[in-house]
Amino acid sequence: MLWTMITSVQNTALKRWKKIKTRKGRKEHQSFLIEGEHLIQEAIRSGAKFVALMVEEQQEKWEMFFSTHQVEAPYYVLSSPIFQSLVETETPQGVMAEIEMHRWEENDLLERGTSTFLLLDEVQDPGNLGTLLRTAQGMGVTGVYLGHGTVDLYNPKVVRATMGAIFHVPIFPRNLDLAIQSMKQKGITIVGTSPHAGQCHFDYSFPDRTAILLGNEGRGVNPDVLAQADVEVQIPMPGNTESLNVSVTGAILMYERVRQSYR
Amino acid sequence: MLWTMITSVQNTALKRWKKIKTRKGRKEHQSFLIEGEHLIQEAIRSGAKFVALMVEEQQEKWEMFFSTHQVEAPYYVLSSPIFQSLVETETPQGVMAEIEMHRWEENDLLERGTSTFLLLDEVQDPGNLGTLLRTAQGMGVTGVYLGHGTVDLYNPKVVRATMGAIFHVPIFPRNLDLAIQSMKQKGITIVGTSPHAGQCHFDYSFPDRTAILLGNEGRGVNPDVLAQADVEVQIPMPGNTESLNVSVTGAILMYERVRQSYR
Repeated sequence: MLWTMITSVQNTALKRWKKIKTRKGRKEHQSFLIEGEHLIQEAIRSGAKFVALMVEEQQEKWEMFFSTHQVEAPYYVLSSPIFQSLVETETPQGVMAEIEMHRWEENDLLERGTSTFLLLDEVQDPGNLGTLLRTAQGMGVTGVYLGHGTVDLYNPKVVRATMGAIFHVPIFPRNLDLAIQSMKQKGITIVGTSPHAGQCHFDYSFPDRTAILLGNEGRGVNPDVLAQADVEVQIPMPGNTESLNVSVTGAILMYERVRQSYR
Repeated sequence: MLWTMITSVQNTALKRWKKIKTRKGRKEHQSFLIEGEHLIQEAIRSGAKFVALMVEEQQEKWEMFFSTHQVEAPYYVLSSPIFQSLVETETPQGVMAEIEMHRWEENDLLERGTSTFLLLDEVQDPGNLGTLLRTAQGMGVTGVYLGHGTVDLYNPKVVRATMGAIFHVPIFPRNLDLAIQSMKQKGITIVGTSPHAGQCHFDYSFPDRTAILLGNEGRGVNPDVLAQADVEVQIPMPGNTESLNVSVTGAILMYERVRQSYR
């Protein structure tokens, strides 16, 4: 294993990583940073393209790790102060990587005979988006569409909360109006939620090809977008509350879909 | 309305509020702070006992608000720097309150013919605990037991994520072993989760009197505690992941319970 040592803050690669910490920099370089062994293992498992691997000193320890977790990319050893200037987590475990953003192929997915999509309209909390993607991977979602105004997918908090799902779930940043239009043309049913829908989600038979529409934490789905749903269902709240967290709403609907498909 | 103006950092009440920002101070004073109109409205709606109400200048604006939202407590106007030194949120809306911790009566709840309890073993993330309580309120949970090692219920991030559920859901900090013991004596079935349970959660008929056991984000439920469950169910993960977020697991189980009770 060939390691490049970085101890100077003037290093070119280091400057790129600092840029990638911002949304603008990530867009420019079409890559993002991940931290910790678990995410790196998930990235490897998914076949993600590594641009660089960075460890915090202790190169010998990581030689062991990367002899069993093979990654084709330049390996860097960073001095501790430099490594710490890059990380976001409190316990980064001394390892991080730069990963190329993946572009998923959309058309095949839309043609599937059985499918479940998520359509997310301006979900703003990184933890919520990350958790939705993690649940989406768990239930085997076909694909997730992120409407404009949704928090940046590559925000480090989102990436962390996905627990690796970001590498496995096909994700498409799209105009939701257009996405809904093409889904409808392909016979996919758009299911929205509303507290006044009248029909409970578990009394509704989800079609084989379903897209679940979820919205912003404060105001729900934009009314113009919700108006395009084919059907609205309601999650009963016997406890007399106004609403549930959006990642909870998503989980409840996704798993009702799972339950019905197991019958 | 009588307002007391606070402009000095030496003020006794202010010193108390600063203390209450820490877990130790909250324990000592048996009270906690909340921020923003929504939480204050939920506190009023629940009949919570207010110790003090504090606004950031603009006393006239808040006279209007509190003429329709009546609170029996001393009213304080704080200078902006002092108010800002107390708040945790980025958008505190210029209003906060000190609320007395509520002690819920446990025995009646355990006697109910139909009940759903949550038992939380070392849930550590404030957002997860808050979201679990919010969902618990939504589905009408009978009570929530917080085992030792669970994040502090009155942590401002927990309080915020509950969206007010902290005022409505009966919550008991307890030794889980003892709680499980007394639940079993009363005929309540303890339902744990395990990826190897063999039985899907939606193939399991939840008894009328059920307690759902959920665990730590990293390692799940402590094996010694899980061993006391009467039954274990598994949430299927067709997507080939290791686990779901604990607040998602909780929501899926709570809502399967709701679904079955609607049959």
